[in-house]
Amino acid sequence: MLGRDELITVEKALDILMKHAPFKRPAENRLSIEDAYGRVLSRDVFSPEDLPPFSRSTVDGFAVNSADTFGATEGLPSYINVTFEIAMGEKAGYPLRKGEGAKIATGGMLPDGADAVVMFEHTQHIDEKMIEVVKPVSPGENVIHAGEDAKKDERILESGHRLRPQDIGALAGLGITGIWTYEKPVVSIISTGDEIVDADKPLKPGQVRDINSYTLSGLISDVGGKPLKRGIYSDRFDIIRDVVINSLKDSVMVLITGGSSVGTKDMTSQVINDAGKPGVLFHGVSLKPGKPVIGGIAGGIPVFGLPGHPAAVNVCFDIFIRPVLESQCGRNEEGANRKKTRVRARIARNISSSPGREEHIGVVLEEKDGEIWAIPLLGKSGLITTLTQADGTAVIPLRKNGVLEGEYVEVRLF
Amino acid sequence: MLGRDELITVEKALDILMKHAPFKRPAENRLSIEDAYGRVLSRDVFSPEDLPPFSRSTVDGFAVNSADTFGATEGLPSYINVTFEIAMGEKAGYPLRKGEGAKIATGGMLPDGADAVVMFEHTQHIDEKMIEVVKPVSPGENVIHAGEDAKKDERILESGHRLRPQDIGALAGLGITGIWTYEKPVVSIISTGDEIVDADKPLKPGQVRDINSYTLSGLISDVGGKPLKRGIYSDRFDIIRDVVINSLKDSVMVLITGGSSVGTKDMTSQVINDAGKPGVLFHGVSLKPGKPVIGGIAGGIPVFGLPGHPAAVNVCFDIFIRPVLESQCGRNEEGANRKKTRVRARIARNISSSPGREEHIGVVLEEKDGEIWAIPLLGKSGLITTLTQADGTAVIPLRKNGVLEGEYVEVRLF
Repeated sequence: MLGRDELITVEKALDILMKHAPFKRPAENRLSIEDAYGRVLSRDVFSPEDLPPFSRSTVDGFAVNSADTFGATEGLPSYINVTFEIAMGEKAGYPLRKGEGAKIATGGMLPDGADAVVMFEHTQHIDEKMIEVVKPVSPGENVIHAGEDAKKDERILESGHRLRPQDIGALAGLGITGIWTYEKPVVSIISTGDEIVDADKPLKPGQVRDINSYTLSGLISDVGGKPLKRGIYSDRFDIIRDVVINSLKDSVMVLITGGSSVGTKDMTSQVINDAGKPGVLFHGVSLKPGKPVIGGIAGGIPVFGLPGHPAAVNVCFDIFIRPVLESQCGRNEEGANRKKTRVRARIARNISSSPGREEHIGVVLEEKDGEIWAIPLLGKSGLITTLTQADGTAVIPLRKNGVLEGEYVEVRLF
Repeated sequence: MLGRDELITVEKALDILMKHAPFKRPAENRLSIEDAYGRVLSRDVFSPEDLPPFSRSTVDGFAVNSADTFGATEGLPSYINVTFEIAMGEKAGYPLRKGEGAKIATGGMLPDGADAVVMFEHTQHIDEKMIEVVKPVSPGENVIHAGEDAKKDERILESGHRLRPQDIGALAGLGITGIWTYEKPVVSIISTGDEIVDADKPLKPGQVRDINSYTLSGLISDVGGKPLKRGIYSDRFDIIRDVVINSLKDSVMVLITGGSSVGTKDMTSQVINDAGKPGVLFHGVSLKPGKPVIGGIAGGIPVFGLPGHPAAVNVCFDIFIRPVLESQCGRNEEGANRKKTRVRARIARNISSSPGREEHIGVVLEEKDGEIWAIPLLGKSGLITTLTQADGTAVIPLRKNGVLEGEYVEVRLF
């Protein structure tokens, strides 16, 4: 594997990592569609029946045989004898004969003998029974045929698809009330550092509170995982190794955050190599913030060592952890590769950057003259409140040594 | 208010509606930050202390008095006597005297007498105690001063802000473990239509299953509301009126969906006017799909009548219900106006549209030659499965009569 001082590019690191996919996935479970919003299908879903089960009108009007309206105009209308009205939710009565029509509402069932629906707007009542049709309809016009929406046994949704509101609606429409999904993947978060205390503890001199396990919990939930905070541990090899080994038993991913003491980064590497094969895949990436990030796999389970710096945690999560976790949520390749939302914006001031590393800068977005501008939040990189003000991060690519005011940059939205 | 045949524009309808803001909001509740991800703050949050509480190093190196490094170069280094090492999480020992330094790690507490940190990379060991500094540091370099991130009593987060992962992290960093948020606003969903049956029921001829209450539940959850399905009701004035009146008691918004029978739309209008003042605000909008949408307010509570058509439900939700619900979640104006994510894409084929109405067409997005193309999903408008295939909807504005292949359109992502 790579030594700690050889920095590789973000692209290369991600490539090395994703070569080990598929990663360990959670088990399947059966869910009611009521509880399935946002969950990922673990099996394809097929239509159990034709949808709609009968031919339906898509407008309010009169069901007719289209041939009876052929050539109808304002000057020379067709005459239709309206013999009955179709009640909603009921079978469509007796068949239409030549020259006959039936009053029908949107969603109503077409009677036998009808192949189209004339809209009210294109008719006029002559008397109680008889209407004039002033515009012809073609066969199938204003009708959804039985099975036109979905055919019995047709695949409706694919395994790996994350269920959106309209997908749940479609399942309900097909009468499918239970489905197979992946359980939410459990991600262990291990905080390390002798100076770190939990948020509810008073601080002694030199101590700081744990920030990253809270931020990571939110980020993991956001992707669809289940965060499991394992606590705060001292920077000692045997202690960290034990909690990592334990975490591998009940998680599909392990995140080790912090450890700012000198030497801790090498210790985290050693723990990952100790925990399983192939161990550390990369250690150090040409990325700012986030340079010291460590990525590895221990027996099929991705393990990351994250820098203690909150801004670096956000950037590293977005670049490395998000795609792995999407895949572990059971997403198909297309879904896993779907990136966080990005917008193109003009940078509001000159930013210098070292070529040879990808740089992420917190920005606030503002619209001005119909264009989106990204206003860099300058401030020392260790600040937490910068992140609370930012709308996202502007990316200065590897091969550029900065951007000039007005230049277009890609902004990754939070 | 307006009669049913006067169509108004989307912009105008939204304007009439939003003039009645603020709408009824849910109560406040106190939450642990662990449970607060995605929730909206109901009160401003102020920093209870200086953050960091002490001056910290942002690098691994040596804490020094910057004056001692003045003019240092490779050829003419400054010499610093390293008198102690600062342990992580502990107070920084005794004060530095002139010419002295202390070994410090990232996050370590600066000792008295130090005002900057020299990075390891810019030093060389002469012997066990003495180092050479080959590059000067200026006062404050590589240091975050006490209170630099947040000052005591400074406002950190504003009421109306929806908490993101990094916000929860910042709260934890400040030792704030409980906050005031708005409860999730309860939105009642009333399905109407004599032909509608629940998803778990077998269909009789002419019947269709309830789709919209499932889709709406997902959409409401997505914005941060709490959907309350009140059941499926027959298209009878007294029945619908009673369930609407009951819903007004325990919800901040009421959605009435469906009712495809002829005359139902007028009935829904009448129910809304009956339920409270000012009643119906608009009935019919120049929008496709979604033309028959009804918007109203009954005693501070928004009530919408939605067309039965699933695609129309999606579009009407996005345009009218989303901003109202964001506001009811307690979002500040900026947050409530934040639109669903949009991308600019080139349309992959000619689409004709009637000028004078805004049209939304389901599209699949594809990247080709570095550009995003929107491929329209053509098919009859009543189809449910079209929505399950779409990535979003392309919008053809009011004043255009279609778009030509290759033209840029705005796509609202699902």
